[in-house]
Amino acid sequence: MPDNRRFLLRRRPDGTPVREDFELVTEPTPELAEGEFLIRNHYASLDPAMRGWMDAEGNYMPPIPLDAPVRASTIGVVEESRAEGFAPGQWVMGLNAIEDYSIGVAGGFAQPIDPSLVPSVTNYLSIFGAVGMTAYFGFLEVCEPKEGETVLVTGAAGAVGSIVGQLAKIRGCRAIGIAGGPEKCARLVERYGFDAAIDYRGKDEAALTRAIAEAAPDGVDVIFENVGGIILDAGLMNLNLKGRVGLCGLISEYNTEPRGIRNLWQLIVKRADIRGLLVADYVPRFGEGAAKMGEWVAAGKIVTDEHVDEGIENTFDSFMRLFAGSNQGKMILKIA
Amino acid sequence: MPDNRRFLLRRRPDGTPVREDFELVTEPTPELAEGEFLIRNHYASLDPAMRGWMDAEGNYMPPIPLDAPVRASTIGVVEESRAEGFAPGQWVMGLNAIEDYSIGVAGGFAQPIDPSLVPSVTNYLSIFGAVGMTAYFGFLEVCEPKEGETVLVTGAAGAVGSIVGQLAKIRGCRAIGIAGGPEKCARLVERYGFDAAIDYRGKDEAALTRAIAEAAPDGVDVIFENVGGIILDAGLMNLNLKGRVGLCGLISEYNTEPRGIRNLWQLIVKRADIRGLLVADYVPRFGEGAAKMGEWVAAGKIVTDEHVDEGIENTFDSFMRLFAGSNQGKMILKIA
Repeated sequence: MPDNRRFLLRRRPDGTPVREDFELVTEPTPELAEGEFLIRNHYASLDPAMRGWMDAEGNYMPPIPLDAPVRASTIGVVEESRAEGFAPGQWVMGLNAIEDYSIGVAGGFAQPIDPSLVPSVTNYLSIFGAVGMTAYFGFLEVCEPKEGETVLVTGAAGAVGSIVGQLAKIRGCRAIGIAGGPEKCARLVERYGFDAAIDYRGKDEAALTRAIAEAAPDGVDVIFENVGGIILDAGLMNLNLKGRVGLCGLISEYNTEPRGIRNLWQLIVKRADIRGLLVADYVPRFGEGAAKMGEWVAAGKIVTDEHVDEGIENTFDSFMRLFAGSNQGKMILKIA
Repeated sequence: MPDNRRFLLRRRPDGTPVREDFELVTEPTPELAEGEFLIRNHYASLDPAMRGWMDAEGNYMPPIPLDAPVRASTIGVVEESRAEGFAPGQWVMGLNAIEDYSIGVAGGFAQPIDPSLVPSVTNYLSIFGAVGMTAYFGFLEVCEPKEGETVLVTGAAGAVGSIVGQLAKIRGCRAIGIAGGPEKCARLVERYGFDAAIDYRGKDEAALTRAIAEAAPDGVDVIFENVGGIILDAGLMNLNLKGRVGLCGLISEYNTEPRGIRNLWQLIVKRADIRGLLVADYVPRFGEGAAKMGEWVAAGKIVTDEHVDEGIENTFDSFMRLFAGSNQGKMILKIA
């Protein structure tokens, strides 16, 4: 059996993760027990939520144990099998870890996928995976957008945000995106079809509040929130009566002592609400969402981008792109 | 005509209001125009929301103009009238100001009330007024409590909170209240029937979080939030899946630079939401709410307390009780 390179969590990050919190080790590939199969991981999804799994408290998932490999969604190929229904050569996706080889079990998280159905097998980690389904169910169902409403998307150039903006246009809404830097802002309008883009860089809360007011002179009906901090506070100041905030993430607060949200009183003034959303609730309906997404992709109504970095040895740098915002599209690590 | 003492806003408070932000002046009682009537104010309601009206930005109400009397709900008696339907001697309540005499207009905010229907005419400012209706509609409709659920009320010894706790018991919920000091906590359990009381004094966020977990070992399904700050953050940490936070007020943040809410990520983990609520939305249904409240009061299922201070010259000290928490029950100022 070949060696198994594994990217281990050695220490729980204190704030921003540092290289020394992790270690890439080489271990023997494990032997299979009855009912198990060996997955050769080809691609791993790198997501902001993984930062939360590294903390001791856990959230909707148990914490990653120390000295265990970092948990991640991966896609790969069955290399060896002692489980029915998972023959060698079968592509699978599942919640595994950043390592060359993972063990799958029949009836577990890994499910077969068919690369011939999608332009690139990596699409199962983006538009047809958790990212696309977060946008689909999180925006269309949790935020209840209506035709003619104004939708503000934060982290709009990110994997989820860029899809939400396009869904807003499909629903007949005005879409405004917030992103970092002129290049991303140009991409929002030119590639994803947002009606307006706001560059948050160099803006304090008051300047952000004004910029949103200029882009949304009639106010904002829906905020799809990925960021938190002053960006959410500025959004809240522009919320319309009965506005809805779909809370998908708070990436600005994952690595630092949170600044806190200070304009919650706007929820009272506007009789508005903030609704937490988690894609895990919609797993039984992924088929429905993926089918609809597939139609829109085929019709050219939704475009997506993937940012693929290569090499398990580059995991740390690739993961940290998510917080620096230096990825352009869904962050994916090519392992093999 | 008698003189009119008026409690004016002279300066917008910078954080915590100080005595010099206001001035009690004596002006001539105004002449009535056609369609107007003169109200001799007997009682004024002192509410935390008034602090927001003193700021320049306004919220759901326009700001109180500088050099105008401080806006307040009052009850009084028509002393002179040039308006149909408002004969001298008629009791009225309305959104007026802290002054001896206010002008009412037919078709305006003032409405006739009948003191013979209630134990004390002041009840129109508490249980049968905005306070009682905030508890009734804000808790029963916005928070959607279900039998057997656990309800956490913050500011539980306050005018609204003490009623919410009793409504929770009527609904078959377990009610836990947070208040400041052992006397208030004893009152929550002994007088209002809460199942448990937590004294927030001397507790940091971690200690509050633990205290709530001890009082609610199965977690919290509904938070009725009046306070904000670390109290809300500690509540969020104890929220159950699909929990609901009814946001009624954030009194800990009205006079200071807000600390901010740092545990909003719990809304994602718990697929929970925060819903802003404002009693103004329910004015057309006040009759329905007051009738139901009346039944419960008559049946001894709801008790309420009023804290009546006397004298318009004491307005500042009475108002500030709300923030010190030194009132016991709905804060009312007796003007005449």
